[in-house]
Amino acid sequence: MFVLVNLKAYDVDPVEIATAARDVAEESGARIGVAPQAAHLPAVADTGVETWAQHVSAVEHGSHTGSTLAEAVADAGASGTLINHSEKRLKLADIDAAMDAAERAGLETCVCANNPDQVGAVAALGPDAVAVEPPELIGGDVSVASADPDIVEDAVAAANAVDDAVAVYCGAGVSTGEDVDAAGDLGAEGVLLASGVAKADDPRAVLEDLVSPL
Amino acid sequence: MFVLVNLKAYDVDPVEIATAARDVAEESGARIGVAPQAAHLPAVADTGVETWAQHVSAVEHGSHTGSTLAEAVADAGASGTLINHSEKRLKLADIDAAMDAAERAGLETCVCANNPDQVGAVAALGPDAVAVEPPELIGGDVSVASADPDIVEDAVAAANAVDDAVAVYCGAGVSTGEDVDAAGDLGAEGVLLASGVAKADDPRAVLEDLVSPL
Amino acid sequence: MFVLVNLKAYDVDPVEIATAARDVAEESGARIGVAPQAAHLPAVADTGVETWAQHVSAVEHGSHTGSTLAEAVADAGASGTLINHSEKRLKLADIDAAMDAAERAGLETCVCANNPDQVGAVAALGPDAVAVEPPELIGGDVSVASADPDIVEDAVAAANAVDDAVAVYCGAGVSTGEDVDAAGDLGAEGVLLASGVAKADDPRAVLEDLVSPL
Amino acid sequence: MFVLVNLKAYDVDPVEIATAARDVAEESGARIGVAPQAAHLPAVADTGVETWAQHVSAVEHGSHTGSTLAEAVADAGASGTLINHSEKRLKLADIDAAMDAAERAGLETCVCANNPDQVGAVAALGPDAVAVEPPELIGGDVSVASADPDIVEDAVAAANAVDDAVAVYCGAGVSTGEDVDAAGDLGAEGVLLASGVAKADDPRAVLEDLVSPL
Repeated sequence: MFVLVNLKAYDVDPVEIATAARDVAEESGARIGVAPQAAHLPAVADTGVETWAQHVSAVEHGSHTGSTLAEAVADAGASGTLINHSEKRLKLADIDAAMDAAERAGLETCVCANNPDQVGAVAALGPDAVAVEPPELIGGDVSVASADPDIVEDAVAAANAVDDAVAVYCGAGVSTGEDVDAAGDLGAEGVLLASGVAKADDPRAVLEDLVSPL
Repeated sequence: MFVLVNLKAYDVDPVEIATAARDVAEESGARIGVAPQAAHLPAVADTGVETWAQHVSAVEHGSHTGSTLAEAVADAGASGTLINHSEKRLKLADIDAAMDAAERAGLETCVCANNPDQVGAVAALGPDAVAVEPPELIGGDVSVASADPDIVEDAVAAANAVDDAVAVYCGAGVSTGEDVDAAGDLGAEGVLLASGVAKADDPRAVLEDLVSPL
Repeated sequence: MFVLVNLKAYDVDPVEIATAARDVAEESGARIGVAPQAAHLPAVADTGVETWAQHVSAVEHGSHTGSTLAEAVADAGASGTLINHSEKRLKLADIDAAMDAAERAGLETCVCANNPDQVGAVAALGPDAVAVEPPELIGGDVSVASADPDIVEDAVAAANAVDDAVAVYCGAGVSTGEDVDAAGDLGAEGVLLASGVAKADDPRAVLEDLVSPL
Repeated sequence: MFVLVNLKAYDVDPVEIATAARDVAEESGARIGVAPQAAHLPAVADTGVETWAQHVSAVEHGSHTGSTLAEAVADAGASGTLINHSEKRLKLADIDAAMDAAERAGLETCVCANNPDQVGAVAALGPDAVAVEPPELIGGDVSVASADPDIVEDAVAAANAVDDAVAVYCGAGVSTGEDVDAAGDLGAEGVLLASGVAKADDPRAVLEDLVSPL
């Protein structure tokens, strides 16, 4: 299982959370990644934690002021990137081009989708992983694996029907080791979470709990 | 084979072309549709031709000023709609929602895509048809079926691999009956075209040629 | 005072409301316009009511599938158009280009803005009118002229400081003749409203009340 | 005069150019800034050069995955930001909100516009500076101050008519000290440039030439 902590634009210290994540990953042997704002990538990567971008633009080197170039986030220490997060939805053609950009830059890709149909759609583009996150559960208290187990199983089935080399992650409401365990039982190979760690009083303790079943 | 004429925002008389399309369809027995600007839908539908919208918004009834509501284009006489045309690319989640909107309004759907990967992606969402139109060939003089036959065959294969109930159309540079014939030989069940008819000196003659092999 | 009724994407009969608006305008001598979905423009214009588009695209004739061409909405009977409604916000450069498009097509323009600063900004582009509609009051029960009279006066001041030939309209929560009266007292030369008429049990009665002070 | 070098998404070493810019600024006493990709901000700021962001999002702290938070770019060492560059055009309401975000984060703002009308519009929002960059001249060999001096003078007049505290910069095709001089003669207080420095064989020599008249 991969545990990916998305720091969004939260008012948190990215280095503090990254350091905790690095330590818990090292101690437990679990795979934990942290995805900060692009401007915070170098500081997060400097901690040694597995570092992900939250987004890359559908562009190559060139005249693209204000873009988030895949090569720039890779330079800054990212080894993977989210694409099409529900808070940064992209046009289909741009998901395709952003995946190409990530591949050129050597970034692992996880493309997000709202429901199993969309999971099938993005799986057809050949990412490393897809993530299903029902928008109505994001930021809530109940894990997707408890609130809507069918959506996870259906997402796994939809992805496998198209390309069984694509890993499926799930997200929304994940905050405990029990949630991670339940997600794994449904066929997910990773979880995305954000506020559960980023807004916790003790992010390290939450991370330790998250990876305890692994 | 379905021949769908997209009038885009061309400076043409939509009723004149619609009337020609209706007449040629009636005389030949071929299926021909015309897709005008939303504001021209009632006038085009009044001719009796099969009428399509160029786009519908990913919304339901409600506070959506400036949208193109599926129900409104159906009221105005459309029986089908393009979605995600390369000149009106949508976010993946909005393609999904626009298809839901079209279904609620009883509209047939044709979702456009740039390449076979994206054709596979949109086929996973379950439209009635998908259309592959390589952007670099749109508006050109050479038919996609001649310039890049592989892309049509690959699109048919990509769609069938996901859902063999989805018809595949192709477009870009189509302007003759020979082009339509070639597209059919590659597995396409329809063609999209625009300038080939809309900018012709004699649209009726072009339409007659287009349907001559059918 | 100009009373402009925006039908948004409401589930209403646009012709019924347009007919009521036409009758009340004729009986009272007041200026009343109706802005339907683009696909409903011809039917609304056929009633004889002053007909507005909800939006026009920042494009000219050409390859712009799915756009809302100013010339097409003018053909369909519109004599004016909203631009940059808060539910259809545009890029600044596209507001400018949409105004050019409207001018080419002979459409009167009303550019919407959220606050007095933005009213000043759009006034600098030279529209016929600007409309201030605080997003937090749209669709509510309290008229902008009662809930936030300063915003209307500040909008009038901001527009006049830039170009005193630009009329200022206001909107959000307007539903009675008293609201129209209050808006006029604050310097507004028109009101935008939507649900107050469109969702009323008796749209004609609401319209009669709206224009009663004029 | 302020000389702001936009590195866009060019395939260049941002630290090398930043170091040259820092040295030339120190030696000449001229004000030179460098605007890299967000992920490169910390490395560029570490050189000691005045560091600008290319863009900030119209958001506050919160659930905004993939945004470019003003606070994050400030953390990373930026002291100013471009907003609404012609390659990253924003909705009017988002220009307004991005300026608020920049102000909260203590960033100086320069809002870009295509023509004098749009310069007047953005000046009404109260930025520190506006920049006029005719899109058709961007990336070309002829400086805006030579190719279209009227546009610079008209931009200065348009900004002053709205708010004479707003500085006016100009850009497009600027690459020599003569261009900077000509811009200053037309009333500009700064220049934006990109390829003229970033793609030069010897960026330091170009920078030295640029500031030679100052």
